[in-house]
Amino acid sequence: MTQTEKDYNTLFSLSKKIRLYDSISYLLEWDQETYMPKKGKEIRAEQLALMASLSHQERTSKNYEQTLKKLIDLDSGEILDKNLPTHLQASIREWRRDFLKATSLPNVFVQEFARLASESTAAWAEARKQNRFSDFAPYLEKIIEQSRIKAEYLGYKDHPYDALIDCFEPNVTTAEIETLFSNLKKKITTLLHAILSSKQVDDRFLHGKFHAGKQLAFGRELLEAMGYDMEKGRLDLSNHPFSMTLHPSDSRVTTRIHRSSLFDSISAVLHEGGHSLYEMGLMPEYYGSPLCEAVSLGIHESQSRLWETRIGQSKPFWKYFLPLLKKYFKQLEKVNLSQFYKAINKVAPTFIRVESDEVTYSLHVILRFELEKKLIEGTLQVDEIPEAWNELMGTYLGIIPPTDREGCLQDIHWSMGAFGYFPTYTLGNLYAAHFFDAFEKKYPDWEEAVAKGNITFLTEWLKDKIHRHGRLYNAHELVKRVSGKKTSETLYLKYLTEKYGEIYHLGA
Amino acid sequence: MTQTEKDYNTLFSLSKKIRLYDSISYLLEWDQETYMPKKGKEIRAEQLALMASLSHQERTSKNYEQTLKKLIDLDSGEILDKNLPTHLQASIREWRRDFLKATSLPNVFVQEFARLASESTAAWAEARKQNRFSDFAPYLEKIIEQSRIKAEYLGYKDHPYDALIDCFEPNVTTAEIETLFSNLKKKITTLLHAILSSKQVDDRFLHGKFHAGKQLAFGRELLEAMGYDMEKGRLDLSNHPFSMTLHPSDSRVTTRIHRSSLFDSISAVLHEGGHSLYEMGLMPEYYGSPLCEAVSLGIHESQSRLWETRIGQSKPFWKYFLPLLKKYFKQLEKVNLSQFYKAINKVAPTFIRVESDEVTYSLHVILRFELEKKLIEGTLQVDEIPEAWNELMGTYLGIIPPTDREGCLQDIHWSMGAFGYFPTYTLGNLYAAHFFDAFEKKYPDWEEAVAKGNITFLTEWLKDKIHRHGRLYNAHELVKRVSGKKTSETLYLKYLTEKYGEIYHLGA
Repeated sequence: MTQTEKDYNTLFSLSKKIRLYDSISYLLEWDQETYMPKKGKEIRAEQLALMASLSHQERTSKNYEQTLKKLIDLDSGEILDKNLPTHLQASIREWRRDFLKATSLPNVFVQEFARLASESTAAWAEARKQNRFSDFAPYLEKIIEQSRIKAEYLGYKDHPYDALIDCFEPNVTTAEIETLFSNLKKKITTLLHAILSSKQVDDRFLHGKFHAGKQLAFGRELLEAMGYDMEKGRLDLSNHPFSMTLHPSDSRVTTRIHRSSLFDSISAVLHEGGHSLYEMGLMPEYYGSPLCEAVSLGIHESQSRLWETRIGQSKPFWKYFLPLLKKYFKQLEKVNLSQFYKAINKVAPTFIRVESDEVTYSLHVILRFELEKKLIEGTLQVDEIPEAWNELMGTYLGIIPPTDREGCLQDIHWSMGAFGYFPTYTLGNLYAAHFFDAFEKKYPDWEEAVAKGNITFLTEWLKDKIHRHGRLYNAHELVKRVSGKKTSETLYLKYLTEKYGEIYHLGA
Repeated sequence: MTQTEKDYNTLFSLSKKIRLYDSISYLLEWDQETYMPKKGKEIRAEQLALMASLSHQERTSKNYEQTLKKLIDLDSGEILDKNLPTHLQASIREWRRDFLKATSLPNVFVQEFARLASESTAAWAEARKQNRFSDFAPYLEKIIEQSRIKAEYLGYKDHPYDALIDCFEPNVTTAEIETLFSNLKKKITTLLHAILSSKQVDDRFLHGKFHAGKQLAFGRELLEAMGYDMEKGRLDLSNHPFSMTLHPSDSRVTTRIHRSSLFDSISAVLHEGGHSLYEMGLMPEYYGSPLCEAVSLGIHESQSRLWETRIGQSKPFWKYFLPLLKKYFKQLEKVNLSQFYKAINKVAPTFIRVESDEVTYSLHVILRFELEKKLIEGTLQVDEIPEAWNELMGTYLGIIPPTDREGCLQDIHWSMGAFGYFPTYTLGNLYAAHFFDAFEKKYPDWEEAVAKGNITFLTEWLKDKIHRHGRLYNAHELVKRVSGKKTSETLYLKYLTEKYGEIYHLGA
């Protein structure tokens, strides 16, 4: 073993310890959202804080820094031993990235920000309940002020918002998102207007009474069909659906069951299942290094949205699954495939982002991005948010929330200090369009297979093309590698236009 | 604040951190036994090892030692500031005890022992499956050898086994247990012979087909009746019933459901519920100090056995609960209280300790204690175990296991290196007899109340007399304080003799 290999292994061990700390935090969080007794909350907060501090301590330690420095020049990012295999070089490059990120924020700042975010989240929840934006405003002001300081600590070239995006979507800039989003906005609003002028879709049969246990059982069938290994995961209930990964061999999903609405949980299961399949597809032998980590939130979202929309809202998928679904829910007996397909793809503007359809979803995200950018720049003041929000809702979606609860108070993100997060939702859809385009080229007959219930060849393909690489490539590199094209909005718009053109009989 | 109070608080913080580490390990274990996906096992072992090492590191650190030394003389055990309130002095005294215990074993030894125990447990499981004691014997030899070394490290006055008991039941000696057990053995075998010569009890209606979901639902009713707060705990399924406490506000129980046998899960729920009520009754403001910790395994067992046997196998309890049970299980409709009471108290020697009745249970424990003591002394060799086991089974219970699987291979304890553990099961019964005697004196009409479904006054009494004190008193002090008597076998034997004398119509 060379000295470099020894140093690499030392860093790998340190990094694996951090990963173990984090995986323990994830279990604490999973339990909190699923089975924890109500009054266990207080001690849970202390357990989580302890694990977070251990993880932070380790990832910013002198020991860690010195080991890293033996492998890479921290300033220039130059790998010291060029004989190392490419994937190990990539790993070191990403370790440096994480280290610089972790150490650029002073400990005191991190703790203060965490405390503020925790208080703000509580204040937001109460303000939303009371439907009083003004109660949340002073917290939000502080959060924005601190986010600006955070951006300065992190550093950026052109725009402070760049630094914030980079925490969730490495190497993507504000300018780039602006270009993508302005094209999307134009084309999607045009498409939306055309849809709204057409004959509307009937989806009443998706609402009624649907036994919770049966919904769960059907959800498990879906997961198994996706190739989700039930010995490496499980499906439980929680207030908000999520996917939680301790290791590629333990990646769990949750869903929320509405007894009166059938498709919500189906969507959630496919979405969270997509996230978990990504984590299950990482290579366990690299566990503890960036080679066994997801690229970015956007790439993660591409996996969940691909399963949720490209498969779970497709006709061939339901050609196979609708008959199974009817076995669970006799009331759907007379619904045919075409009716079902249209209903699950119904487009109708709604105030609430998480309830929105595939066409309007991006508009919700773009609205938030535009406000966030201005808030960070200082060209929009906190007290101006409700008006600005409602105005954009009117412009993009043609509807205006009656109160802030259905408007600017609906999302938790700002209260948590997660500025820069929202764009990744839409980036995920764009990435998914690139990936699915490549998949369709490789498997032009995919619809026939899926209509027979064979879907795991997609899982395998995603694992081969995306999952197994971990952070070997960044998002844009990966998109280019898989699809042969630079990330753009074109493929996504093409998909939306064709699909909804057919459903709503729009002229070509 | 005085300097002593400051030092106390410093130690309290350090100790609380250790408690948090351990509480996180407990959640990892709880999850492992309840909901963890099968293939999550490997990473779970790493997470547990990491938390165990953090906990051990902290509790044996120089920093910890130096803080402790400011409060107590480590050699003599003399508290340095006599002005401290008694309960804080007790806390410091127990901290010293734990520190000396933790530091008396070299790190290398602890790690080696843990590795050996882990290997031995796997070897034991396989040997039991194959029903070949000889496959397990070499591991057991090493475990015994290491346990002897452990005893030397820990130190003892009279017998190396004293040091091992002391790990589970502080301040109790081999000699003391020998006296208690020899009296018990004599009286119980006499009682057993009388019972076996009498008319046998019919318990066939406890065996049949009992819906698992209904058993669970009834279990939850029992827990609530006991005063178990469902917002501070929960009931789940696992392979072996257990109680797991993260904090007085998060103490969970599990049970195992046999569809063909009704009373197993009822017993398990009452037993584990008793353990959890103890932990829920500790004072959360002391969390992190010995004042919020259970006294010993024996005292813990006294709480579980008190609920399981003194209440859960009593007539007044079932006067109230049998009608409820019949609502769940129609097949019991024609069973009357007297039949039910006799059936759940049926005495019949069995090979398996965990399936044994209240009368024979202690004989199983005494047999193990006698073998353990000889093994540690070196007066019994490992290859002589099967014969010695079967001989004692014949003498005490009048039955001889057909194979070692039903004999000396049945328990996991030795493979885990838990020599000294078994006696605590019987000590628990003796302590429970003392506590219940005091309770009956305080509430001579308890049977009437319980027969009406009012039981929480017992929970409150136990909390007041036992739980809330934490480790303020040791086991014998607590027994003396509550019952006014020195720990002995008398009250327990009186209870057994009277109860089973009535059930089996034995002459007085």
